[in-house]
Amino acid sequence: MIPNKKTLIEARERIQPFIHQTPVLTSKSINAMVGASLYFKCENFQKMGAFKMRGAANAVLQLTEKEKLKGVTTHSSGNFAQAVALSAKLTGVKATIVMPSNAPKVKKKAVLGYGATVIDCEPTLQAREQTALKVVNDTGATLLHPYNCYHVIAGNASATLELLEQTKNLDAIIAPIGGGGLMSGTALAANYFSKAITYGAEPSGADDAYRSFKSGKLIPMVNPNTIADGLRTSLGDKGFPIIQQHLKDIFLVEEQEIIAALRLIWERMKIIIEPSCAVPLAAVIKNKALFKNKAVGIIITGGNVDLKNLPF
Amino acid sequence: MIPNKKTLIEARERIQPFIHQTPVLTSKSINAMVGASLYFKCENFQKMGAFKMRGAANAVLQLTEKEKLKGVTTHSSGNFAQAVALSAKLTGVKATIVMPSNAPKVKKKAVLGYGATVIDCEPTLQAREQTALKVVNDTGATLLHPYNCYHVIAGNASATLELLEQTKNLDAIIAPIGGGGLMSGTALAANYFSKAITYGAEPSGADDAYRSFKSGKLIPMVNPNTIADGLRTSLGDKGFPIIQQHLKDIFLVEEQEIIAALRLIWERMKIIIEPSCAVPLAAVIKNKALFKNKAVGIIITGGNVDLKNLPF
Repeated sequence: MIPNKKTLIEARERIQPFIHQTPVLTSKSINAMVGASLYFKCENFQKMGAFKMRGAANAVLQLTEKEKLKGVTTHSSGNFAQAVALSAKLTGVKATIVMPSNAPKVKKKAVLGYGATVIDCEPTLQAREQTALKVVNDTGATLLHPYNCYHVIAGNASATLELLEQTKNLDAIIAPIGGGGLMSGTALAANYFSKAITYGAEPSGADDAYRSFKSGKLIPMVNPNTIADGLRTSLGDKGFPIIQQHLKDIFLVEEQEIIAALRLIWERMKIIIEPSCAVPLAAVIKNKALFKNKAVGIIITGGNVDLKNLPF
Repeated sequence: MIPNKKTLIEARERIQPFIHQTPVLTSKSINAMVGASLYFKCENFQKMGAFKMRGAANAVLQLTEKEKLKGVTTHSSGNFAQAVALSAKLTGVKATIVMPSNAPKVKKKAVLGYGATVIDCEPTLQAREQTALKVVNDTGATLLHPYNCYHVIAGNASATLELLEQTKNLDAIIAPIGGGGLMSGTALAANYFSKAITYGAEPSGADDAYRSFKSGKLIPMVNPNTIADGLRTSLGDKGFPIIQQHLKDIFLVEEQEIIAALRLIWERMKIIIEPSCAVPLAAVIKNKALFKNKAVGIIITGGNVDLKNLPF
């Protein structure tokens, strides 16, 4: 069932001891450039470096005692792997993470550092799903999905609940859309607890949510092509109806616009963010007239980037 | 005259309307790694991106009304150029900045953006000094020195005054040493207003302060060779006696240690800092035993880096 007001408030309280309340930053020079007041909710400063910690923690904490004893598993090459591993560690639950053999070594190391067991598999979705299924069958572990899960959506919504408390009267909130786990949580929180209009932002090279939103039909992403690696996944069927109901619009931006916005945040704000979070700022810059003199919240999703592979 | 307690307090009050009170950040994972509690004073979030704003603002604000009318000048390829340009702009004073022809374009653009006049010159110290002297002779402008000036030293000290208020009972404070303008201000503030022991940190490839400190004789830097570009300058004769009197020791670190510490801060703290500020952390990592279980303040000097030229 789509999380209601109470569910969001409970999720936030549940995960509070296990996450950081992240700061909201502003930049005079970027505000001057776009002619609006932007409020960046900095989930790059979240534990393990991304908002995924919120949803993962809520999902792990919702397990029954019996389920907790059998542990959790997921397949992920990146942030969700770390989020589940750390959430499991903090709550005393065993985690087995299936990671494709091409996952960055640094992420594998981080997952191991959180005390999880890592099982390598071939870098295909099929191999990942089969290996995770085997873990479930062998151990009875609960399989956690990175975004197509209401517990994850409700946990992610807590970033927006905090943002609304840390700011006053936002006119709009924008988040990027990958699998829709952040976007749908953001839209629910904004809709339940504020008058802010919610927008989504997507790379043109991974525009499945845009096409789904415009056509009213869930269209999977095939061959995504974007630097915003967090946004290459297909929109899930749990997030889609929420997005359809609560978003005013979805903006598309081009790769060069994403890189320019990324550079702007790195250079002006001196914070490290991953390319996915530059997508909403790129959308604001591209649609300046729409946001003129507005107070706009932007969810900065995370800061786990490969410093050896930067687009500058 | 070496700034006294009252001078530091007055300098801080004088510049307060023109600077940011920057945050103090901590990192659980870095603390666990070094076995100490580190408090990073984040001057990378300062206006124009570096602590230099503090000293420049104090120097400009100390001018008489008559001097203000004639303007200010300096020669600099980087942060001090921007700091003087912005301080002058905020106080309604005309600034003429002499910049070597090889200064990064982005810095020249920033200086022009603050409304200063830029005069290009050959990239030699002689050409820089002669060109600045010509500005002084032609216009009567006051020449500001980036570090060998008590007003600058007193202004820079305000970062440590803030740090001491933002933390409790620091055991030690470490700053990097370039020209000594930050280090001497830091040492004075720590000595006047706390019981913290003050240390300096320097790259082995620019170890003039270390050699001067150990020999008791000011030794100029010849052919510095370090990625920490802010620390290539020679220690000034105004900072040297302060450093000699108030520092417990100066640590030397190697280039690979600087880069490792730089990467650690970028990756774990998700903030962009320039290589110079990684030098104190590298020193703490290298001297873990000395700092075990201590509360240590570290001045993060700035965040203006060339993203096209990173050492990772």
